[in-house]
Amino acid sequence: MDAVPTPADAAADAASTALLTDRYELTMLQAALRSGAARRRSVFEVFTRRLPEGRRYGVVAGTGRVLDAVEAFRFTAPQLDWLSDQQIVDDSTLAWLADYRFGGDIRGYGEGECYFPGSPVMVVEGSFAEAVILETVILSILNYDSAIAAAASRMSAAAGGRPLIEMGARRAHEQAAVSASRAAYVAGFAATSDLQAGFRYGIPTAGTSAHAFTLLHDSERDAFTAQIESMGRGTTLLIDTYDLGEAVRTAIEVAGTELGAVRIDSGDLLMLAHRVRRQLDELGAEKTRITVTSDLDEYAIAALGTAPVDGYGVGTSLVTGSGQPTCAMVYKLVARSTSDDPDSPLIPVEKRSAGAKSSRGGRKWSARRLDADGVAEAEVVGTGTVPPELADRQLQIPLVLAGRTVGREPLADARARHLRSREQLPMSATQLSKGDPVIPTEYPTG
Amino acid sequence: MDAVPTPADAAADAASTALLTDRYELTMLQAALRSGAARRRSVFEVFTRRLPEGRRYGVVAGTGRVLDAVEAFRFTAPQLDWLSDQQIVDDSTLAWLADYRFGGDIRGYGEGECYFPGSPVMVVEGSFAEAVILETVILSILNYDSAIAAAASRMSAAAGGRPLIEMGARRAHEQAAVSASRAAYVAGFAATSDLQAGFRYGIPTAGTSAHAFTLLHDSERDAFTAQIESMGRGTTLLIDTYDLGEAVRTAIEVAGTELGAVRIDSGDLLMLAHRVRRQLDELGAEKTRITVTSDLDEYAIAALGTAPVDGYGVGTSLVTGSGQPTCAMVYKLVARSTSDDPDSPLIPVEKRSAGAKSSRGGRKWSARRLDADGVAEAEVVGTGTVPPELADRQLQIPLVLAGRTVGREPLADARARHLRSREQLPMSATQLSKGDPVIPTEYPTG
Repeated sequence: MDAVPTPADAAADAASTALLTDRYELTMLQAALRSGAARRRSVFEVFTRRLPEGRRYGVVAGTGRVLDAVEAFRFTAPQLDWLSDQQIVDDSTLAWLADYRFGGDIRGYGEGECYFPGSPVMVVEGSFAEAVILETVILSILNYDSAIAAAASRMSAAAGGRPLIEMGARRAHEQAAVSASRAAYVAGFAATSDLQAGFRYGIPTAGTSAHAFTLLHDSERDAFTAQIESMGRGTTLLIDTYDLGEAVRTAIEVAGTELGAVRIDSGDLLMLAHRVRRQLDELGAEKTRITVTSDLDEYAIAALGTAPVDGYGVGTSLVTGSGQPTCAMVYKLVARSTSDDPDSPLIPVEKRSAGAKSSRGGRKWSARRLDADGVAEAEVVGTGTVPPELADRQLQIPLVLAGRTVGREPLADARARHLRSREQLPMSATQLSKGDPVIPTEYPTG
Repeated sequence: MDAVPTPADAAADAASTALLTDRYELTMLQAALRSGAARRRSVFEVFTRRLPEGRRYGVVAGTGRVLDAVEAFRFTAPQLDWLSDQQIVDDSTLAWLADYRFGGDIRGYGEGECYFPGSPVMVVEGSFAEAVILETVILSILNYDSAIAAAASRMSAAAGGRPLIEMGARRAHEQAAVSASRAAYVAGFAATSDLQAGFRYGIPTAGTSAHAFTLLHDSERDAFTAQIESMGRGTTLLIDTYDLGEAVRTAIEVAGTELGAVRIDSGDLLMLAHRVRRQLDELGAEKTRITVTSDLDEYAIAALGTAPVDGYGVGTSLVTGSGQPTCAMVYKLVARSTSDDPDSPLIPVEKRSAGAKSSRGGRKWSARRLDADGVAEAEVVGTGTVPPELADRQLQIPLVLAGRTVGREPLADARARHLRSREQLPMSATQLSKGDPVIPTEYPTG
């Protein structure tokens, strides 16, 4: 292998997800290749033992990104050289990695679907070797994106029909922020401030202006004038740099009553929204909208429900999952073939030692049972045959078959699925107060 | 809409940081280019108004990544085409962006340095145009990396001299995880499980094995044998899949008393560590080390201080900042030239409307004042001339001069700086209980 990386190598490294992997995946692989057990057909299941405290439902997000990551899970020459130099795995393992491409099956919940404790949100099936090494990157994506989507879903429910703009990039890792925009869009946000999220995923982008822009100019009037001249009267002026009442007067003097919107970014938003609305109306700017930002979370959004507010910008609490910045999804071996012959029958396996970390063996199906009114009443998770009455309520869909991606879909479909899924839950699902999962998970026996 | 990224897109994304930017940066730029104010010399300061609740110090991390990001802040043709198609900015702004490369100065706290409320941890100076558009990516990096480093520093202090392994990749965005490993290493962690962090930054990597590996085999003995045959006796065996006592016996039978280590990943770690230590000693494996993992945070690590534990693996709580997944760093215009002539004098500017969000105008220096014993007693932040007695205690170092990066350093230097900086704080800095910042921030007048 060539030790000097070429531009093509650099591009390949950037595109490869293969090292977004814990070291032990590769050393387990090496040991299993040597013992022969690497050939055993294996079923790994992604699930969570519990929802974050007080949350009533979870939201699967990141599925589409998992499909990209699995396709890009190829080891480049510089990566293999590095693994060799570091003596992380031996030569025969390196040779195996050099040819790696996932050839198994992945099924899972459609992106945007709600989930509950025990829901088998993704199932990866293949040889132990090909499936075990995907653990870290799959969990990274699902745990982060689903945490953001869960928070976004609560916020979008709290906002009623008012639009939410995701603007948290500055409070999250720069790449995580892009994925956060995507997850928020799946869970009901209307737009993002993050240009990369617009560029990469086609999410609508939006923005206003910052205090720096006002401070840059000799007066607020100069700043507003500059913005209107450049962006037109439909723009959003930021009105809380100096005095709010004066800013509103200046804004309408400069822009006229056709001004698109004003943004309030500090202070008692509930009171200020009322005051600014009244002032705008008195000035004849009845159609000028009010956008509020400033440390909003789902509770603050709900509290502003009766305020004359037309849209919300949400930053920190969105990109940090509103107190729950990750999910507790795990990737567990639940079944494997009985011998190194991959055609031998599958048997369920499970960890037995510690109660809280035990798992249920066996490859699972799941379905959401509805009551007579079409409202969800249970998450049913089982092994074996699906009862006929649940056959058309199954939640897993094919994502990858024999290594071929079959589950790719437009982001709009995930967004629509989330809304459908949430609307089918009991209404208390979107209560913001702490509670138990809004439907129980049932494990039918026999 | 819904475009699927290709490997080439991913490579282009990785090469450019220019769209890791909020839309409003570019629209403010357009308006300022049009009004002429874009030429005004501007000083932007990164600081935080407060530490996360109860924290006694912060840790600057990500500085080196900021330098990379600023160098990579170039707009590619596909990005410019997209900005044009989306009508985000006009043609003259696009032309300006096409030629963009930062030509100003950046000073800041050395990576690893501790910081306090008001510390000017980074100062970006240039034309308004060239400096304003770096806001989002600089804050993303510093806010995330510093949050992780702050948590990691508390954990490394709590661990005393025992080594900490970062193993949280699966609980964080896959790229954030790599940066988290880096930040943890700066703040005292010994190694990471994340191969990409090893590959990209040269951080030592480490790993053990997972329950899946044991469950894959027909017996725990088979699994241990396979691991020992592949990895040698120095490896770490995971002993809590079935029965701990049996597993320890089997481990020593298979590996002999030269077994490197065992890992306990569930249960009452304090009790189990004592029990396993005793059993290992009775079996003659007195040098076999014990590593514990399982939802550890700084409190759990401190509680295990008297346990016979040789190392800690930390996951979720590290990558989520142990309850504080972001910092509240902001990027504020604090001074600008008085007119569109960039050579006109700088004047301080500050937002005035809302108390909690107000800022102090003026370009600032800062220094850490020590007492007679060499212990830090205040963070001194001022404008104007640095008092001579503080001249050699200044905290900002040059990072970029006239667009040229001058502040790059090996990661080991940041790691050493953090240790030095933390050791200079009053000892109560590393108390884990909630408290005020361990030293006050002083703003001398006149």
